[in-house]
Amino acid sequence: MTSGRTGAVRITDVAALAGVSPGTASKALNDTGQLRAETRERVRRAAEQLGFTPDGRGRALSSGRSYTVGLITTDSSGRFSIPIMLGAEDALSAGEMALLLCDTRDDPVREQHYVRTLLARGVDGIIVTGRRTEPRAPIKVPIPVVYAFSSSTDPADASVVVDDHGGATSAVGHLLDIGRTAIAHVTGPERHRSAVERARAATGTAGAAFRGPALYGEWSERWGRAAVDLLLRAHPDLDAVSCGSDQIARGVCERLRELGRRIPDDVAVTGYDNWDVMALACRPSLTTVDLELEELGRRAAGMLLDAVAGRPHRGTLEMPTRLVIRASTLPD
Amino acid sequence: MTSGRTGAVRITDVAALAGVSPGTASKALNDTGQLRAETRERVRRAAEQLGFTPDGRGRALSSGRSYTVGLITTDSSGRFSIPIMLGAEDALSAGEMALLLCDTRDDPVREQHYVRTLLARGVDGIIVTGRRTEPRAPIKVPIPVVYAFSSSTDPADASVVVDDHGGATSAVGHLLDIGRTAIAHVTGPERHRSAVERARAATGTAGAAFRGPALYGEWSERWGRAAVDLLLRAHPDLDAVSCGSDQIARGVCERLRELGRRIPDDVAVTGYDNWDVMALACRPSLTTVDLELEELGRRAAGMLLDAVAGRPHRGTLEMPTRLVIRASTLPD
Repeated sequence: MTSGRTGAVRITDVAALAGVSPGTASKALNDTGQLRAETRERVRRAAEQLGFTPDGRGRALSSGRSYTVGLITTDSSGRFSIPIMLGAEDALSAGEMALLLCDTRDDPVREQHYVRTLLARGVDGIIVTGRRTEPRAPIKVPIPVVYAFSSSTDPADASVVVDDHGGATSAVGHLLDIGRTAIAHVTGPERHRSAVERARAATGTAGAAFRGPALYGEWSERWGRAAVDLLLRAHPDLDAVSCGSDQIARGVCERLRELGRRIPDDVAVTGYDNWDVMALACRPSLTTVDLELEELGRRAAGMLLDAVAGRPHRGTLEMPTRLVIRASTLPD
Repeated sequence: MTSGRTGAVRITDVAALAGVSPGTASKALNDTGQLRAETRERVRRAAEQLGFTPDGRGRALSSGRSYTVGLITTDSSGRFSIPIMLGAEDALSAGEMALLLCDTRDDPVREQHYVRTLLARGVDGIIVTGRRTEPRAPIKVPIPVVYAFSSSTDPADASVVVDDHGGATSAVGHLLDIGRTAIAHVTGPERHRSAVERARAATGTAGAAFRGPALYGEWSERWGRAAVDLLLRAHPDLDAVSCGSDQIARGVCERLRELGRRIPDDVAVTGYDNWDVMALACRPSLTTVDLELEELGRRAAGMLLDAVAGRPHRGTLEMPTRLVIRASTLPD
């Protein structure tokens, strides 16, 4: 919020005075591109006249990189926001940009505050992300915004989200492919959109093989363990469990093993998230759905760059997940 | 690197001209503290003479908030850097500041690049953190730096680190307190300073009760499981295992349970990190050492504020850990 930065002359001002496009002005000041010497000179004079200095912001506009982008997140654990941030960094730069990461701790007042802070610091755009897939109220700012992971409730905004329906469909489709005929689904709280979406996709995909109802509980290993006892009582023929998270799947595997069921021979198990500390430590290692969050971050940042360059996107883009097949379903 | 900021008169300049300390100069200009009217007047005249303006940076110095601080990290998982960031945010603001988080992915070239980027954006100071406790080479910048979690190899720099020796001592001391007399230690790779420090503290604290040697391996549940078999063969009287991480401790508990050993009745187990997804999901839940990383972040940010205000700290401050007692050691 230095006054020098807020009031800075922009390259668009220089371009207007010189009567050229901003791109041409940028090339002229950077000695790149093929321009007539006279054009180059005219731009330089305009820059001098306006006191244009190639500061952080000016360089960004002229070189097409070096943006500053705010990343607003509610995900204090970083489990979802960190991979999204890494992907965004990839897209925004060959290392020339900076991400202002702001953690709102799910507090609307804190979020408002950060939005104002980011605006005051002249960021070029904002990526809004979170740890839940529920659509969220848009932020009101005069600069480009892209919503990642949680879409905006305004359909005209640009959002990039995970295709949860496709993810759960791929997991259950895989269970059918390996010949399972009695498939249950165990997931998180019914008030979470991600749980409901995954359960619907699992139910629909399993069809006649579905052993319902889908069991809603919490996102924990403990719930996975408890669910196994419920399932085996209700469905003695059970030969597969599709889970709404890797934590749940790990609990399911642990309890099945305790009860002497072989995985996957007797019961195959799938997780969701591809969270390494769960999916790889699980015995056996988990077949699971990777959310491809880095790719989601790259895409969100790419859309933000487009918007900053005057080509905004609209609507919600669903990004494909990736099924990772491991020992918990690998048929013998 | 807006020219306005780079060339700005600093409060240290005002202090020098007035012949007082920067702290006194700050108090004088802010009408705080107990100063003689004459001193206050002298500082004001010096400020006027030098054209000292309470701009972004000046305001920060005067109000104690509104800083921009860079946080450079090598911790792509966010497991260590996110809590440090949250603590730093607390200390730096009542929500008025922004943290520029830059992830170097452990790449020196990328780190150099980010350092330049942060300087160009005029941050007031930099916190350098990482995911390893090894001292690291200092960054060379003309603004205040505080090293958090990983200290600087230059003892004149300001560093805040976890007291790993104290942490491991508290865990093993607790095992002695509950009457254990045959205590082993299982930890990560011997090339990691944190593993060696914790092993040394465990060995020293256990004294005659130590069943050595300390077992070095990897930071994984799998290693914890494997270590149990080695330990029980070597020390049939084993009644406690102190572990270098919660992941290792979880593997230790899992294998002990498989072998029919009761925890803690037959063998008590302690972890390290207080990583909730491991410590709470473990059966039984883990007694462990909390690194108090948010407090470490708060302290690092506080030291950075002091340095920006002209009162730099020097040397390495070791922050205490906190023993969290749960069911894996809770005596009946």
